[in-house]
Amino acid sequence: MLKPNERLDDLQRDGLKIIQNKTMFSFGVDAVLLASSVIAKASDRILDLGTGTGIIPLLLSAKTDAKEIVGVEIQPYVADMARRSVELNNLQDKIQIVGEDFIDYVKSKQGYYDIVVSNPPYFKSGGGIISGNEYKMISRHEIKMNVQSLFESASLALRNRGIFYLIHRPDRLVDVLYHARQNSLEPKRARFVASRIGEAPKLVLIQCIKGAGKELRWEKPIHIYDEDGNYTQEIHQIYSENGITSFGEPR
Amino acid sequence: MLKPNERLDDLQRDGLKIIQNKTMFSFGVDAVLLASSVIAKASDRILDLGTGTGIIPLLLSAKTDAKEIVGVEIQPYVADMARRSVELNNLQDKIQIVGEDFIDYVKSKQGYYDIVVSNPPYFKSGGGIISGNEYKMISRHEIKMNVQSLFESASLALRNRGIFYLIHRPDRLVDVLYHARQNSLEPKRARFVASRIGEAPKLVLIQCIKGAGKELRWEKPIHIYDEDGNYTQEIHQIYSENGITSFGEPR
Repeated sequence: MLKPNERLDDLQRDGLKIIQNKTMFSFGVDAVLLASSVIAKASDRILDLGTGTGIIPLLLSAKTDAKEIVGVEIQPYVADMARRSVELNNLQDKIQIVGEDFIDYVKSKQGYYDIVVSNPPYFKSGGGIISGNEYKMISRHEIKMNVQSLFESASLALRNRGIFYLIHRPDRLVDVLYHARQNSLEPKRARFVASRIGEAPKLVLIQCIKGAGKELRWEKPIHIYDEDGNYTQEIHQIYSENGITSFGEPR
Repeated sequence: MLKPNERLDDLQRDGLKIIQNKTMFSFGVDAVLLASSVIAKASDRILDLGTGTGIIPLLLSAKTDAKEIVGVEIQPYVADMARRSVELNNLQDKIQIVGEDFIDYVKSKQGYYDIVVSNPPYFKSGGGIISGNEYKMISRHEIKMNVQSLFESASLALRNRGIFYLIHRPDRLVDVLYHARQNSLEPKRARFVASRIGEAPKLVLIQCIKGAGKELRWEKPIHIYDEDGNYTQEIHQIYSENGITSFGEPR
């Protein structure tokens, strides 16, 4: 089942495994934090925009009873990796991987989803020549999408009052909040993630609700490491994922 | 010099005093934090939108050598208090208080200012009847202005590359960042203020630059109290104000 440069990683949750390619982008704490922030009911349909190797659908399949989880990935080889991981875990009934540009995909799925999630590329494309590893570039830089098309797509795919969960970098927060409001995805909860207590934030978790009122609640920050450089209790808890949520309550 | 219900408070800085009315809004840590975040050169002109009792012009007169500091206040009696505080401190050469709606004032001052500051009313007007103390209501609620008119006015008053410093509540951050961008006042630096380490933020300091590029840098948070409930060293330093800055470098 593995192709050259691929390896099988154990997610240490429900026996889940994921195929990753050591020359490409590997999932990080961001994907784990994002998945931990999602609350879904059994009747929910979930869409992951830019699913990569499918880490978020895999984590959500373990965490939730959502009846349908779809991951859309524009890069054919990466989508193929994700599809093989789904098969390996025998989750074909629950997770579907679509190898397509999500901007096109959502056009035929307007208002279909209850929940959209995304751990998107964080960096602007910069307009330069793509050098080095194209897979990594597309995973990290806004080459195939940007914050605007992300929010347009999420808004299109969601039903009214549907929820968009995303994680991004704090230095992109103006872009994120601006395009959220422009697309009627009102940011309702947000949470900074810092490496250590008292430090500047590295990541931001955001929860938007389509058509909601204008008030953003900021939660207390998440810290990754304690003073001794070990994971904090909260991060341990998130990684062991026993029904924890970084924010959010049942709707 | 004092009228009924007024008292004279010592700012404990350069012998400065301020007239406040005990039945009305008194300045808080917000105004002190905001003033501490401002960097100004001797050649700078500074405008304070909604100056209230003039606390920010007074603090900035002590902290900076700015050649002109103007505070605009819509409430005639409050503007009168501010004007009397300026006279009491003998700062008429440096500070001017204008008793006018800032939305009107800036129309005749387009591009005139290098720096605009504001510690605006934080709460939406809610559309209800104004009950109780009208002065307090106008100081705390968006009755005479709102985030949109605040940013429109700041943008109008500033020269290109001029800086708008403001403090607001984190739950209004979508409004703030949205209208900032809409008015070409790009948010460049931001900083949360929390009561204690690890807690959710209560306030946010923001620095926007007119016509700047799109990247927002988040600084480490400011904490007001330590674990024993005393002011942190940083707050002591801000209150004693010896050239401290909460963020910002010389332009």
